[in-house]
Parts: sequence; C-alpha cells; structure tokens
Amino acid sequence: MSKGIKIVTIGGGSSYTPELIEGFIKRYDELPITELWLVDIEAGKEKLEIIGSLAKRMIQKAGVPIDVHLTLDRREALKDADFVTTQFRVGLLDARAKDERIPIKYGVIGQETNGPGGLFKGLRTIPVILEICKDIEELCPNAWLVNFTNPAGMVTEAVLRYSNLKKVVGLCNVPIGMKMGIASAMDVEPSRIHVDFAGLNHMVFGLNVYLDGVSILDSVIERMTDPNNEMTMKNISGLAWEPDFIRALGVIPCGYHRYYYKTSEMLAEEIEAAETVGTRAEVVQKLEHELFEIYKNPELDIKPPQLEKRGGAFYSDAACSLINSIYNDKHDIQPVNTRNNGAIASIPNDSAVEVNCVITKEGPIPIAVGDIPVAARGLVQQIKSFERVASEAAVTGDYQTALLAMTINPLVHSDKAAKQILDEMLAAHKEYLPQFTQPVKV
Amino acid sequence: MSKGIKIVTIGGGSSYTPELIEGFIKRYDELPITELWLVDIEAGKEKLEIIGSLAKRMIQKAGVPIDVHLTLDRREALKDADFVTTQFRVGLLDARAKDERIPIKYGVIGQETNGPGGLFKGLRTIPVILEICKDIEELCPNAWLVNFTNPAGMVTEAVLRYSNLKKVVGLCNVPIGMKMGIASAMDVEPSRIHVDFAGLNHMVFGLNVYLDGVSILDSVIERMTDPNNEMTMKNISGLAWEPDFIRALGVIPCGYHRYYYKTSEMLAEEIEAAETVGTRAEVVQKLEHELFEIYKNPELDIKPPQLEKRGGAFYSDAACSLINSIYNDKHDIQPVNTRNNGAIASIPNDSAVEVNCVITKEGPIPIAVGDIPVAARGLVQQIKSFERVASEAAVTGDYQTALLAMTINPLVHSDKAAKQILDEMLAAHKEYLPQFTQPVKV
Amino acid sequence: MSKGIKIVTIGGGSSYTPELIEGFIKRYDELPITELWLVDIEAGKEKLEIIGSLAKRMIQKAGVPIDVHLTLDRREALKDADFVTTQFRVGLLDARAKDERIPIKYGVIGQETNGPGGLFKGLRTIPVILEICKDIEELCPNAWLVNFTNPAGMVTEAVLRYSNLKKVVGLCNVPIGMKMGIASAMDVEPSRIHVDFAGLNHMVFGLNVYLDGVSILDSVIERMTDPNNEMTMKNISGLAWEPDFIRALGVIPCGYHRYYYKTSEMLAEEIEAAETVGTRAEVVQKLEHELFEIYKNPELDIKPPQLEKRGGAFYSDAACSLINSIYNDKHDIQPVNTRNNGAIASIPNDSAVEVNCVITKEGPIPIAVGDIPVAARGLVQQIKSFERVASEAAVTGDYQTALLAMTINPLVHSDKAAKQILDEMLAAHKEYLPQFTQPVKV
Amino acid sequence: MSKGIKIVTIGGGSSYTPELIEGFIKRYDELPITELWLVDIEAGKEKLEIIGSLAKRMIQKAGVPIDVHLTLDRREALKDADFVTTQFRVGLLDARAKDERIPIKYGVIGQETNGPGGLFKGLRTIPVILEICKDIEELCPNAWLVNFTNPAGMVTEAVLRYSNLKKVVGLCNVPIGMKMGIASAMDVEPSRIHVDFAGLNHMVFGLNVYLDGVSILDSVIERMTDPNNEMTMKNISGLAWEPDFIRALGVIPCGYHRYYYKTSEMLAEEIEAAETVGTRAEVVQKLEHELFEIYKNPELDIKPPQLEKRGGAFYSDAACSLINSIYNDKHDIQPVNTRNNGAIASIPNDSAVEVNCVITKEGPIPIAVGDIPVAARGLVQQIKSFERVASEAAVTGDYQTALLAMTINPLVHSDKAAKQILDEMLAAHKEYLPQFTQPVKV
Ligand SMILES: [Mn+2]
Ligand SMILES: [Mn+2]
Ligand SMILES: [Mn+2]
Ligand SMILES: [Mn+2]
Repeated sequence: MSKGIKIVTIGGGSSYTPELIEGFIKRYDELPITELWLVDIEAGKEKLEIIGSLAKRMIQKAGVPIDVHLTLDRREALKDADFVTTQFRVGLLDARAKDERIPIKYGVIGQETNGPGGLFKGLRTIPVILEICKDIEELCPNAWLVNFTNPAGMVTEAVLRYSNLKKVVGLCNVPIGMKMGIASAMDVEPSRIHVDFAGLNHMVFGLNVYLDGVSILDSVIERMTDPNNEMTMKNISGLAWEPDFIRALGVIPCGYHRYYYKTSEMLAEEIEAAETVGTRAEVVQKLEHELFEIYKNPELDIKPPQLEKRGGAFYSDAACSLINSIYNDKHDIQPVNTRNNGAIASIPNDSAVEVNCVITKEGPIPIAVGDIPVAARGLVQQIKSFERVASEAAVTGDYQTALLAMTINPLVHSDKAAKQILDEMLAAHKEYLPQFTQPVKV
Repeated sequence: MSKGIKIVTIGGGSSYTPELIEGFIKRYDELPITELWLVDIEAGKEKLEIIGSLAKRMIQKAGVPIDVHLTLDRREALKDADFVTTQFRVGLLDARAKDERIPIKYGVIGQETNGPGGLFKGLRTIPVILEICKDIEELCPNAWLVNFTNPAGMVTEAVLRYSNLKKVVGLCNVPIGMKMGIASAMDVEPSRIHVDFAGLNHMVFGLNVYLDGVSILDSVIERMTDPNNEMTMKNISGLAWEPDFIRALGVIPCGYHRYYYKTSEMLAEEIEAAETVGTRAEVVQKLEHELFEIYKNPELDIKPPQLEKRGGAFYSDAACSLINSIYNDKHDIQPVNTRNNGAIASIPNDSAVEVNCVITKEGPIPIAVGDIPVAARGLVQQIKSFERVASEAAVTGDYQTALLAMTINPLVHSDKAAKQILDEMLAAHKEYLPQFTQPVKV
Repeated sequence: MSKGIKIVTIGGGSSYTPELIEGFIKRYDELPITELWLVDIEAGKEKLEIIGSLAKRMIQKAGVPIDVHLTLDRREALKDADFVTTQFRVGLLDARAKDERIPIKYGVIGQETNGPGGLFKGLRTIPVILEICKDIEELCPNAWLVNFTNPAGMVTEAVLRYSNLKKVVGLCNVPIGMKMGIASAMDVEPSRIHVDFAGLNHMVFGLNVYLDGVSILDSVIERMTDPNNEMTMKNISGLAWEPDFIRALGVIPCGYHRYYYKTSEMLAEEIEAAETVGTRAEVVQKLEHELFEIYKNPELDIKPPQLEKRGGAFYSDAACSLINSIYNDKHDIQPVNTRNNGAIASIPNDSAVEVNCVITKEGPIPIAVGDIPVAARGLVQQIKSFERVASEAAVTGDYQTALLAMTINPLVHSDKAAKQILDEMLAAHKEYLPQFTQPVKV
Repeated sequence: MSKGIKIVTIGGGSSYTPELIEGFIKRYDELPITELWLVDIEAGKEKLEIIGSLAKRMIQKAGVPIDVHLTLDRREALKDADFVTTQFRVGLLDARAKDERIPIKYGVIGQETNGPGGLFKGLRTIPVILEICKDIEELCPNAWLVNFTNPAGMVTEAVLRYSNLKKVVGLCNVPIGMKMGIASAMDVEPSRIHVDFAGLNHMVFGLNVYLDGVSILDSVIERMTDPNNEMTMKNISGLAWEPDFIRALGVIPCGYHRYYYKTSEMLAEEIEAAETVGTRAEVVQKLEHELFEIYKNPELDIKPPQLEKRGGAFYSDAACSLINSIYNDKHDIQPVNTRNNGAIASIPNDSAVEVNCVITKEGPIPIAVGDIPVAARGLVQQIKSFERVASEAAVTGDYQTALLAMTINPLVHSDKAAKQILDEMLAAHKEYLPQFTQPVKV
C-alpha cells in the first residue's frame, strides 16, 4: 500500500456516500487515499453521477489529493484495490418495500433485515457478494472487503462459509449508535464510554458499559427503562421497554431486539405506517429523492445536514474508523462482524458474530466474551441457525431450504404461512433471484 | 435391593396409576416388587382410595405378592424406597385449565408444558419436587427418582441444578409414542424400529429411523408428510405438516413441535376448543370423572380400556421399562431426560436433555449424537435458555426472573403482554406459588 | 446382505487368523458367512497357504458351509464384500524389530505402537490402508472396514481424516483384556463385569468398573496395586504400579500406559531383552515360526492352544463380536475406535477415540463420557496431537512433519535426537516408505 | 483511587525491586503513586532495609512525591491498597537450590518452574498466596493483585480456582523478552513488532509475528533457527533449536520450551553446571550478594546496571505497564496470565492461560486465538493438567495428589522415581510445607 491507498466503493451511488467522503477527508492525514472508485450499475448511473460530482466538490473544497473515479465497470475498478466497501442494494428500495409489505399481509413483521424481509434481502444480496468476492480474489487479492450491505450478519456468514476470501469484515452502525445513545442518556462524552458488545448483527447486546473504565451497567439500565429517555436508532421505533424485563435481562439490547421482544407492538406500528405514511422503504424513497435534489446543487460542497435523517448516523465514523485502524494497525477496539473463533462460547467457532475486536493490519481479532447470559443466549442461537440456513438457501437456490429458513425464523408463526409468504415473495422478487430456477409451486 | 423392591409413587391417586400397576404385574418375574406405596395429598384422598382398591384387585387377580400401601404421609412412604416415581399435579386439572385459558386471552398459546402454561406448571411443580428430593436424600438416599410430572424437561433441569440428588431420570411417553406412530405408519412391528432421539422434553427430534438397522428416514418423512397418515400423540392436534418444510428439516419432529412451527393454527384450534368442547384440561376433567366411575366398580380387576383415551399411551411401558432396566442393569437403549454430558454438542454439558441412553444400574448414560442439524438446533437452544431461566424463577420466586422467562419464551410476542399474562397468572395460581412472596404489582 | 455374508481378511496369512476362524465358526448361527476371502501379498504367499489349509480343515470339521478363498488379488477379493478386516503388517516382523532396536540406541522406548516405532508403523501402514479404502469405495461401498492393524488409533484417525470412507471401525484387544484381567483379579465371571472405557487406542482408561451394575472401582484399584496381582496384557511387561499413584489417578490405566508412567523401567527392560532374549518382534518371530510348523500339521483342525502365547488373546472375541453386532444390529456395548462426536469432552469431535459404543447396523455410536479426569486427560490430549501430526506425515510424506511428530512424542526427549532417530529409521524402512521421496538429509 | 495510588509490594526486599521503583518513577505523570509499601518477612528484614533505603534515594533523586513505607506487617500495609504486587520467594534461594539439585540426582530436570522443582515451588507458594488473597478480600477488596511469584501460571490457576478474588493477574517477563529478542534478531525497533502470544506461563508460543502489522513469522522462524542468532532469556540456556523442527512447528516457542523439546541436552547442561559453577540458584545467590553490596552504597540513587545480569530484564516494563494500563483504562494489548474464557479453544474456559489481553480498568480481557496449532497443543494441555493437579495438591496437602502431579509431569519418567523424588523433596522442604501434615512414608 506504499504508493497511496486505493478504495473501491461498490454501490457508490448510494445516498450514504457523502458521509463516507466526509469521513475520508477528516482522516486524510492518517489515511492518505489517492484513488476512490465509486462503482454502480446501469440502473444507478444517474445517482452515481450526482454523488460523484458532489464527492469531487467536497474533496476539492477540502484540498486533499484524492482522485475520484466513477464507473459502471466493477472489475476495472477492483484492480489492485486496497479496500473494497460494499453498500449496494439489489433491487433498490422498491424491493425493500416489497420485503416490508408482503409479510404484514400474513400478520408477520415486514422488515429489511429481520423475518421474511431479512431472508429475501439475503437471498438477493449473497449471490452478488460472492461474485464480488471472486473478483477480489482475482483482481486485488490483498484487499479488505468491508461490507455494509444488509443483512450484514448473514452476508458475513455467507462469505466466511462459501467464499475463499479471508479478508472480510461486516460493519453496522448499530453498536456505535448504542454507544452514542448511552453517552447521551448518561450525559457524558462518548469517548469516556466503553461497551462490551457481543451477539450477532442487529442482534447485538451491550454486556457491560463502563464510564472511564468503571462499570455503570446498572445505571444505564435504569436510565434506559426510564420512559423519558430514548435510546434507539433513528430508523427503529422508540417503543419503550418493559422495565422489569430489561432489569432481569441484565444486558443492553439493541433497537432491533424490539422485533423479537415486542413483536406485537412492532407489527401494529408497521401496519399503521403502511396504511398511513408508508413503510420505511417508502418513507426513505421520499427522503432519498429529496436528498438527491439537494446533492444536485452545484454549490453544495459539504455533507448536507439533511442526510442525518436518513438513518445512517455514525455510519461514516464506523466505516472510516475501521479502514483507518486496519491501515494503520491501530490495535484499537471496534465492534465488527467477523469469525467467532471462540469469542462467544455458545456460538460455533466458524460462525460470524458481531463482537468487540482488536483491529489490526491483519484484520479484526475478537475479544473473548466467555458467554452471553443464558436468558439472552437462546434467541441469538436461534437467529444464528436461521442465518446459516438462509445463507445456504441463497447459495443453492433450493426451494425447500428457503422454506426451511422461512419457517424456523422466530417471527414466522406457521409452516403453511411460511410457504405462502415464500411463494409470494419469490414471485415478487423473481428478477433478482436468478438462482431460484425451479418453477415456484404456487 | 436384595430383599425385594420397594416402589413409592407420589401422586398415586392419578388416573394413570392402573397402567403403571399393569406394567409392574407384567414384569413381575424380572422386577420382584414387594412393596408399592401410593402417596397422595389430603385433597386427593378419595381418588387415592379408589385407585388403591383397584390396584389391589388387579394385583390379587394377577397373583403376584406385591403389598400395596396407601398413605398421605410422604415421608413414611419414602423410608428405604428403591424407586420413587412422581406423577402429581400441583393444583390439579383446575390449575391446568387456567394455564390453558389465560394465555389465549392475550393471543398466546395456552398449553400445559409450553409457553406461559408450561412456565406456570414449572413454577408450581419445581418447589415441590425439590422438597421431595430433600426427603429422598434423607430417607432413601440410594433410591432412583423417576419423574413423569410435567414439564418433565424443566423439572429435570431444576433437579440437576438445584438439588444434590444425582439419581434422577425424567420420563415422557412422547418418544415411545413417536416410535409406535412410525411403526404403525410404516406398518411394521415396533420392535423392528429404532429411532435416534435427541433434543429436549416435548422438543425431541428423531434424527434418524432404522428398520432392522437400516435407515428408513427418507421413507418415514415421506410417509409423515402424506396427509392420509397421522403420526402424533393422542392429546396433540393432528394438524398436517407442510411437506416441503419437513423434507428440508430432514429429521422427525415430535407432536409438540406444532406449537412452534404451526403456532397460528394451534392457537386457532385452542380458541375454537375453548369456545366449544372446552380446553384440554376441561375435556380431561370429564374423562377423568368417567374413569374414576369405572375404577370404582368392585368387579373391575384389570386396567380398563377406556384409560387409553386419556392420552397417556405407552406411559406404563416407558416407566416400567426404565425401572426394570435400571434394576436389572440391562444396558438397553431408552430415550430419557438426563444430564447432557456432551451427548448433544450444542447444549451445555450440565443441562438436561432428552436423548437415547444406555440404561444401567448406575443410571442412564447418554449416547453421543454429535449435534442436532443446524436448522433444528436454534429452537432447541432457545427453549433450553427458557427452561433455565424458568427453573431459576421457580426456585427463587423472583418476579423479574419470572417475567424474563415469560418474555424470552418464543410463544410470547411482547414484553408488555408477558407482564400482563404473568400478573394475571400469578394472581390466579397464588395458592400454589408460596415462593412468590412479593406483592404482585398489578 | 441377504444372500449370506462375504468377509474379506486382508493379511489373511497372519498367525492370528485361526482365532478369527474359530470365532466365525462359533457364531455361525447368528452370522451366516458364506464366503471368507483370505488376501495376502506375494511375500506372504506361503503363510497364506498354510493358514488357508488350516482354515478349511477347521471349517470342515465344524460342518459350517463357509467357502474359503485364498488370493493375492485384493481387488478381486473385495468385490461386493460385506466386511473387510485388515490385519496386515507392512514390512513384516523384520520391520517391527527395527522399530524396536533403533530407538533404544538413542535411549528411547522402542515399541510397536508407541514412540518412534509407533510413528514408523503408522508411516508404513497408513498409505496402504488409504489405498484399501479407495478400493472399498469402488468395489464394495457398503462394506464395513474393521481394522486391527496397528497403530489402530492412528490408522483410524487417518481414515477418518483422509479417506471418504465412513464405515470404519478400529479394534484392539486391550479393553477386552482389561475386562478379563479385572474379572480374573476379582475372581468373578467376566460377564458380570462392565467397564466404562474411554481414551485412545493403547491409551485407554477404565473410568469405572461395575460388578452386576454396582461400582467396584475402588476395590479393583486396591486389587491392581496389590503386588501379588497381575493385570496386564501378555505382551506387555507386568511391572508393578506405584500404589499411591494409581489410587490418586482414580481410574484404571491399560498396560501400555506403562510406557509413559514407567518409561525408565520399561526402557531398562527393553534394553535387557534386546541384549538377551531379543526384542518382542524377535521373540514373536520364533513363536510364529513354531506356530506355522504346528499349523502345517494336516491333522490339526482346531485353533491350537499354542496361539494364546502369541499375545492376541480375546482378539477373536473382539473382532467376531463386533462384526456380529453390526450384522445383527445388536445395540450392545463394545469399546472400539471411532469418531469422538462429543463422547469425550476434551478431545475434538472429529478425532478418533477408543470408547464404549452401542454397536448397530449403522455402526458404533459412542456413549457420552463427559470427560476423562483432569490428571489423566493431558497425556491423552498430547498423544492425540501426536497421532494427528503423525497421520499427516504419513499421508504427505513430508520430512519436516515427520520430524515434528517425532519430536512432540512424549517418549522422545530431544529435537536433535528426534532427527537422528528419524533419519536412521527413514533409511532403515526406506523400502516401505515410498511417499518419502525427498532424499533424507543425513 | 482519586486521592493517589497506594501500591503494596509483598516481597519488597527482593533484588528486583529497584527496577520496579525505576518503572514507577518513569511513569509518575500517568501513574501518580502516593504510597509505596514494601513488605517482607522477618528473615528478609535486612534486605528490605537495604532496598528501602535505595528506593528512597531513587525517589528523592527523581523528585516525585512517593512515600515509601517499609514493614513486616503485611496486613497493616494492605489496608486500602489499590495494587498489590507479589514477588516473594518462600524458602529463599536455598529452597530453589534444592529444587534444582534433588531432581537431577534422579536424572530429572531440576528447575525453578518446571518439573519437580516447579511443583515444589508451587506447593510452597500457593498457600501463602491464598492467605494474601484472603487479606486482600478483607482489607482492600477493590485492589488488583499483580503476581510475579513463580510458578506464575500455577499460582494464577490456584487463585482463580481456590480464592474468591476476581481481580488477579499473573505476570511474567518471558513474552516481552521474546518480543525484544525478535526485534533485536530482526534489527528493528521493538515498538514496530507485535506478537500473538498464547499458551501457558513459561509455555507460551508466539503464534504469529508482525512488523508494522504485516506478518513476518516465516522470516523470524528462519532467523531463530540460524545458529548465529540467539533468541532466548538470559537465565535459560541458549541451546540451538533443530531448524526443521521449528519450521514444522510453525510457531515461536519460548525459551522454557527447551525443557520439553531438548530435555536431554538441558539435563546434561544442568548436571554439568551443578558440578562446576553451581546451579542457577547458587549462581544467583552470588549475584544477589554482590547486588546487595552495591545497593548498600549510600551514593547509589539509580537502578544499578548490574541488575540486568540477574535475569529479570523487562520485568519493570511488564509490571509497570500493566498497572498503568489498568489504572488508566488504556485498552492496550499485553500478554498476561488470566482466565481463559474461550480465548484458547483447547483449554477449559475456567483455566489460567497466558495470552494477549486488552488491559482495561476492569482487568485484562483475553483476545480470542481460536486455537494453538495441533502439534503445539498437546504439550500445553498436558502441562495444564499438571498445573491443575499440582494446585490441588498445594491446597489440600494430600500426599497422593502430590504424587499424582509429580508422576504426570512430562519431565518425570517413572512413578517409582516420582515417589522417591517426592519423598526426598517433601523432607527437604518440610519447613515450608505445613499443609503436608501426614508423615511422609519414606
Ligand atoms: Mn446495520
Ligand atoms: Mn411428556
Ligand atoms: Mn491393540
Ligand atoms: Mn516468568
């Protein structure tokens, strides 16, 4: 990497990209990027150009010598890359809207990364990621793949299990969001807070919380069960937890845990939203439209503040921090998705987990947790089972395996309903599921 | 045990007892019981006398020298016992009816051994079992405790974790019922069928099935997904499985798995039943009443055929077989609830599992399964988490721990609903939950 | 297997074969063998013919319709076999004599299955076994491979790890010898004794001992530490154990444990023997010569009593019992070498162990031990490490890996000496180690 | 700890103390110690006073406001301490000389932390450490115990297993010595080198080595097998490794591994030394005498350069670094002895290991290694077995358990010799082994 860093961002036309650009600019002194390639597909060409122009303006304003390249040719871009970030969305927000709307017709949570929606996002995404992995092996075998594409846990599981790539990290902004939320709830500087994260992506727990190195777990739990406080991600409901439940659980759940511990309430909210403001994808579509209008403004040469509403807060920090720590062999601690390797006792060693890691030039080294408390453990294990079967379905395109994944998902309450949802979603997403070649038996 | 075997049956007034008597009579040559003590509590005195008289008539007819003793004094009975069987029901069928009716008001499965009902049966039963364990340690420390009282898995977990008793086995008729069902579906003698059982009580899978030692798993799966076949326990719905789901699962679920893989359909059935014929407890109450009328008949000196409708088929076989194999050090294979000890890889070594064991004089030795297939594993692990937290709640009487158990149960879909169900059930069962001394915060 | 059983014995010219024949004859009613193929190589042709003739006389005398075939064409023999037993010795007793004599020159135990000798027997044997495995896959894919060839543990490890064959069992007469020794020491019928065996081949422990199902472990330990008693295999020294050591160990070691717990004394014995009566191989060579003289006698039509001196006592029982139980799906318990699968907690699931198993038509199912006591465990783990590295060396023919195996063997006390022994033995056994193609750097 | 740090050093009269003082002085800005208590026993009073005076001169010269207290009253010193370091030697160097001389009479390695000597140092030390633990629980329950007393691994194991103290870390200078040795051999700044350490104390491996974050393991292995290079601790022989062995091992052994992989050569060196210059203890006795003469010099107010010959190089750095990182919650990585917690797969979670940890205010959090390579693993597991049995013997004073530990130690080659060595050493160290109350049966 001596001659400057080359970064390739697949899905470069994403509305999140300006945050990433901002993060690279801020860290330029430590992280001297010389080339940034933004890659997208034909359907995303217009967005890519809007984002690319904005990126160039931001970089020019910052006065850092980063060359921005825009391309629809992924393989051209990947040549000799040092880091590849992936943030694409197969089928765009339209597909997400289907993931959200179809399940609720059957009384089942419709969500991007959980339940049937999470399964289908995985089925659409994993084959593409595995192709990218093959390209990386061929074109830039020393590069690190930093994946943000959801479902990031299932995707990391699939890469670990079905690709030869070793240098892969899955990344999510949920842990950093939890840390920020805790800092804000406790009214202290985030840098003074340390959280012991462990679990799976979108199913991560804060096992302990420290302020200046001293555990404040009990106070955080009290604060978070206080209805006047709000500790959740912007894009997840702020529905309050039952205080005695959280006290007994004794660890900090993430926002997405609501889909499992408050299923009824979340479903009610989703149905209500679908009938009024629209599902999250539909809301985001509008936000994105507005964002791109703003991005088009040739005067704009910073990340516009409106991006924060989009829901990807701290995304830039998480991503740039990770790349920076790998590049500079920082040995600092960050929560990422990686091979468990014994860090969490009740998850197999060869499975992907989201856990605090020491970040080195050789990648993340997970910190040994011992185990997740018994009450929290079972759900994590069940989701891990689901992720493994879902990954297999994504790779094989096998109908029965997909039905198995759907049925064992804890948000789906019936094998018959599972089949109905599966069939409707297979038909709806047909275009993006070429691996499912068997005619759907509807 | 040289001077003849002494067996103590706690809950001796149960309607099941005649089957047990029949089993002992049939095996008398191998299993020379000299004393059989039937123990019950004051509230069950009348039933105990009816059953006791019938037992004596049956034994007299059979011409075997077994002395039957009836008593309300458990400690008197336990003195120097060789085997203690437990089949009592704290709160009788009235309590079970509440376990069934209260949850469905909240849209949650109401069932004796699963969901909120299973939790409450555990909360009522575990303290009593642990007292019996203490009595055994004191009065007959070499005796084996053979527990049939439900929830048998949670009860075994609690005894292993919270008592000093080592000689305990949990027993259920589900595995033998599955074997019989398979034999019947395949139209062969049951003795030619062997099933590799592994899982938890009421959550056991048949991992493989052999006919004369050759695997016929695939044929059994095809047969069981054939809607014309029925392989389920009498007291569980015969709702058909989705064939592709079972094929992909690749192992044989038990009847109780329907509560998890067909939750919606099972709930609908329960609601329908509650509104028409009554819940299972209410149906059984009638059956029991009729049974006891029959038992009273002084001419009756055999197990009446009507008992089979009660739902405890093969119960006698399972129980007597187990006692016989322990007594005679048979080293045969039976599925029982015992300490895992590595037999199932994804369950902690110190947890109770239901798994095939070699039955010896020193107790059951589990057979190493390796692991349950990944798709089936997660649910098993989640229920094990639940059982552990539920056992702790039963022992401590801690409100928050009970709420935790209720909320993490996969059949309960909301922490708020969990609290409501918990509070209503704590109030309803107050009489049988002396350990919950904190005033319920309703 | 409906049309009668076909058994193929590779190394059929072994002096042990008459015992096997006797075992088959005794069990004919249950185990209706129609064809028995004795296979050997050119160098063993004469012995094969002597044994073959004796076998035919024994079978004729017994009046059972077993067809005996003699052949040097292994592939012809394997066609459609039901069971393949392997009992060959690559390099014959001459090679064993080298395994015994070379190490003692360096002050290291020289023994057939332990230390440098065990390593070299493995290096010579494993490639041949793996070729046989390939033939079996092709010619009789449903056959069971029952391997007696030493080092049986390392061979089983290699087959599990480097072949596709699943139907393999490793067999040794040490456990049955221990059981017989215990019965004899306690002066009871062997059938009343049950031993919980667990460990590795030639490193197996009796974790508990039962008489009629009641533990008599403490008495057995007292008896075995009594200098007047002798509980060891015929072909291992009867050197007495230090009583307090065995009491503290709390489990029953096998005879081969003396090589590790009494290394100095065993080495002294070996040196003494080498200088006087000859090493064990040299003694056995004489015994074998005498045996074959006896076998030649055309009047002889039973297993001659002199065979028992050879050291393979109970070999026939172990082998025929195993085949019988597989064939008849007996579900009885026998100690064999198989995939651990969780049976012993401190050994990886995918490694070969020697442990009590339930023997079924689908093969042995190990019984879960939990764990070997901490004091006994470390040595077992170390030998397992050695076996794995040794297997790898045998398959790869890699010099460094062979040196690694030699150096980490606990009987070898120096990396420099390891290299010297390795080089001398590689040269001495060159003919039988075609995989070691690199010129030895002496 | 707001009002300044109080450190208590038990065994304060040790010749190493000046290095510790120097380390505290250097770090004063970050680690504001206000009180340093040097504690020793009556027999060490004179040395304590020499060291105490030197310490005061050093501190005065440095101009930092650390109050030095000297005392023979351990409990007075411990009151409200923040850190307790232990570096005492029960029986002084005389006892060590016996640990070294007695075993070699039986042809067994005589060494301070390995073999019989390591066992006896453990037997003498562990009861004293456990008493200190009780005092800490009572007098300064929030203090961290940082133990340097050898055998540091066995001592940490014993504290984890037999004390209630949770805040304990075991420390050794071997890993930092390896890192320094590697840096020197590769001729780079130590700060650019990172080593993945994992194993046990005095049995730690460098699993990988990085220069500026890039693996240089292969080059390091080549360099270390180059006879012209020397990478070993000062107080361990520099005997060269067999290059092909180290290449095949594929990880970096520590100096103490020579006792296992070069036992013969090390024993020969020990015997030679014992007959000429004296054993290591005897050499050190002279060095210490000289050192204390130097320390007495009232002009001396720095750590004298002669201390480095003593063998404790980098000791100060390791100790002060650890305390500093705990105090300042640094989250940096240091190799220490702590509870495994899953970090090394093949060691039980509840055992002490020496492994890279993230050092926080809440103590060290081990980094998940996955596993030690198979070839290196077995020896580590065997030593862990030994350490566990040895710890038990130290706590119980049970003769048989001590014999068991002695016999299973891989450096001891015979149960009979084990008994002889045990008996002679029990007699020789009688004064310091009050827990062994049974009369030794010699
Ligand atoms: Mn995310
Ligand atoms: Mn049941
Ligand atoms: Mn053998
Ligand atoms: Mn050390």
